[in-house]
Amino acid sequence: MSKGLLIVLSGPSGTGKGTVCKALLNKRKDISLSVSCTTRTPRAGEIDGVSYFFKTQDEFKKLIEKDAFLEYADVFSNYYGTPKSFVDAEIGQGKDVLLEIDVQGALKVKAAYPQGVYIFLVPPSMEELENRIRSRGTETSEQIESRLGKASSEMKLMKEYDYRIVNDTVDDVVSRIEAIMAAEKLRIIRYEDETKE
Amino acid sequence: MSKGLLIVLSGPSGTGKGTVCKALLNKRKDISLSVSCTTRTPRAGEIDGVSYFFKTQDEFKKLIEKDAFLEYADVFSNYYGTPKSFVDAEIGQGKDVLLEIDVQGALKVKAAYPQGVYIFLVPPSMEELENRIRSRGTETSEQIESRLGKASSEMKLMKEYDYRIVNDTVDDVVSRIEAIMAAEKLRIIRYEDETKE
Repeated sequence: MSKGLLIVLSGPSGTGKGTVCKALLNKRKDISLSVSCTTRTPRAGEIDGVSYFFKTQDEFKKLIEKDAFLEYADVFSNYYGTPKSFVDAEIGQGKDVLLEIDVQGALKVKAAYPQGVYIFLVPPSMEELENRIRSRGTETSEQIESRLGKASSEMKLMKEYDYRIVNDTVDDVVSRIEAIMAAEKLRIIRYEDETKE
Repeated sequence: MSKGLLIVLSGPSGTGKGTVCKALLNKRKDISLSVSCTTRTPRAGEIDGVSYFFKTQDEFKKLIEKDAFLEYADVFSNYYGTPKSFVDAEIGQGKDVLLEIDVQGALKVKAAYPQGVYIFLVPPSMEELENRIRSRGTETSEQIESRLGKASSEMKLMKEYDYRIVNDTVDDVVSRIEAIMAAEKLRIIRYEDETKE
């Protein structure tokens, strides 16, 4: 049996990663979503092992020591991390795993797992990105400016990825990710055993 | 406008390249078939510029001197070659070009045009390949043995390609080529201008 793919969907905040992820998982029940570990308190309705693997600070630190994460980050005193074991187990069973993650996290994962498929989701334009962030209505002008500045610098990291998809319509993006997955499964580099002399 | 892709479909003789090509061109009218030059005499029904560009030996040799071919070969005293100008013109207009070619030819094209997409068509098994070649009923046992020996050594060149597709059913192969084309158009390396700092 051939191994599954790790599909990493990333891009600046506000490009619509979350919406694309949900639509892809809804269409393709064969894809597993990577479940992260976190030390933050579960919110109402969140289920351990589905929403997150909830860990204490001590447990999380021990996992860091054991090199158990593809990447982790400390966000406002809470840890978030992508456990290797979940990804390895799913991929080992031939299942494809989807990981939605910010640009910094994606590049850390790439360093640890270069055989993954790294997709950068691009907003149709910076104007459109600004509209999307403003229309959320949850942030001050200053926060919006800071977010746009960050997005602009993150766009420069696109070249570290394998593919870029412009997020024009969700259905089109989902179809393109499916084409990338189908093509990646046919790449010669995934058949090393067969092509060895 | 973005450039078209050169899709090179190759593989050992008897793997069904021709059938796949016809089915793909029939489904996808937007793809151009690369037309070869040859010095052999036109057969009944063959049209210059459609079946082949028919050339005299002198004309062909002058084209070789001008470095006008992505690859060429001398087969039983007749030249066959893939003209650069046709491929360049179509790709420059944003059209995708399909080139069906044997393994030796494909690797010559790859050396001249590495940005192409190189697909190796694999028979479901060597037994199946043997059945296919035998069922043609046009060759002696000796010719069949020689063809199988050649196929077996060509299989080792698969690792020089970008993708491998097992030719189980024509429809599936065509869909997979379409997925590869869609994915290749999204690859970061095709957006160098955008990702330059």
